Amino acid sequence: MQPRGFDAFYGLELLELTPELARAQLVVAEEHKQPWGIVHGGVYASIAEGLTSYATAKAVIPDGKGAAGMANQTSFLRPLSGGTIHATAVRKHGGRTTWVWEVEFSDDQGRLCALTRMTIAVREPPAPA
Amino acid sequence: MQPRGFDAFYGLELLELTPELARAQLVVAEEHKQPWGIVHGGVYASIAEGLTSYATAKAVIPDGKGAAGMANQTSFLRPLSGGTIHATAVRKHGGRTTWVWEVEFSDDQGRLCALTRMTIAVREPPAPA
Amino acid sequence: MQPRGFDAFYGLELLELTPELARAQLVVAEEHKQPWGIVHGGVYASIAEGLTSYATAKAVIPDGKGAAGMANQTSFLRPLSGGTIHATAVRKHGGRTTWVWEVEFSDDQGRLCALTRMTIAVREPPAPA
Amino acid sequence: MQPRGFDAFYGLELLELTPELARAQLVVAEEHKQPWGIVHGGVYASIAEGLTSYATAKAVIPDGKGAAGMANQTSFLRPLSGGTIHATAVRKHGGRTTWVWEVEFSDDQGRLCALTRMTIAVREPPAPA
Repeated sequence: MQPRGFDAFYGLELLELTPELARAQLVVAEEHKQPWGIVHGGVYASIAEGLTSYATAKAVIPDGKGAAGMANQTSFLRPLSGGTIHATAVRKHGGRTTWVWEVEFSDDQGRLCALTRMTIAVREPPAPA
Repeated sequence: MQPRGFDAFYGLELLELTPELARAQLVVAEEHKQPWGIVHGGVYASIAEGLTSYATAKAVIPDGKGAAGMANQTSFLRPLSGGTIHATAVRKHGGRTTWVWEVEFSDDQGRLCALTRMTIAVREPPAPA
Repeated sequence: MQPRGFDAFYGLELLELTPELARAQLVVAEEHKQPWGIVHGGVYASIAEGLTSYATAKAVIPDGKGAAGMANQTSFLRPLSGGTIHATAVRKHGGRTTWVWEVEFSDDQGRLCALTRMTIAVREPPAPA
Repeated sequence: MQPRGFDAFYGLELLELTPELARAQLVVAEEHKQPWGIVHGGVYASIAEGLTSYATAKAVIPDGKGAAGMANQTSFLRPLSGGTIHATAVRKHGGRTTWVWEVEFSDDQGRLCALTRMTIAVREPPAPA
């Protein structure tokens, strides 16, 4: 699965997509920052949303279902101004109608930068645009 | 104040920035969508983050302080596949070290599409990159 | 509808339960506080959970459905050490499978003390214990 | 450290309080349930709030500081109608002004029932009531 749309636009790289664990990364560029030189919080939220949506979709599409974000709760712990953002998502709940993932973001030194709890609705797939 | 960095990259338009109320919009394009044709959840989270950060920064910079996102909690209520996203942020708390905003996103018909509660830390400004 | 179980145990008083707006209050006593003399955060979270669950249940039970909390996001803005907690819940989304409420808590002077975003799942009712 | 106030009132038992890991439990009784026979969501939120506040306070009080809940985000994954709730809190961030904990709740069979992300403000202690 390759990122498309917004995830391709800002540069998300998917590394691993399994039903229980998923990983992605983003090489930080100027266009990912806010005006004060650190990575924009929306970038972490976007990575969490994309990563867990792709992982869930990949798992449920064979059953004729789709996946769409329902809630995204991101906490920012340590500002990052360069290098690569490493995102690891662990599935905490795989229910019939919702999946819940915890996503951790770390920098090149392995320090935790942000956390997202992502709730994904599992549904009939939306009609193509 | 004009959006810079990530907010300029994805196309945020700031309409009003006061300490109590702030508004912005985004004209939806293909690059804002996820693969299934609806607006990517990270786009709403990014707008909330940018809008409330600019509004808070504009208010506290004259006091020698800065603003940075601390937590972003976005709930997705109604998928949107085109038109303009209208974002309105109302400040609920303006404390010494944190501000809390509630952001509502609606479509061109005024229907609520998403909600964000945004917590902004008010601090000494981070050093420029 | 009268509070039962945990809500009766800690003393919740329901004042108004409509599908769009709901109100409750709690007279603060020593058993609602944490060791440092202010109202325990779990009390606000419990009020939000109870109030919006009762309001949603009252609306959907006639359709043969039930309501159960799915996510509770509470932010604490101003500590409270006595008087009455006034809770007002406004429904933001009334979908087929989820309802989303925003709950505001204020003190006797009308100052905002806490905020909860409450997501309620609308489902077939759980079997009685 | 023994639970006092609200935590004593509903019956929290603290098992372990270290700066990085904390554990507690609650034996479920009728007064912890909502009217449909399952544990009230406010109970999980209260346990998370109490457990992480005690653990943080124990660590920072020797430095002349106090701890107070700032945000509590609880997701409910599996209803529980009896037995014991087992809560384990892992500290994800130990900053100068905020600590962030992830709390997992499981039942007697080790199944995950709920998750809380708890943000604790580290501050000068509030004056005693």
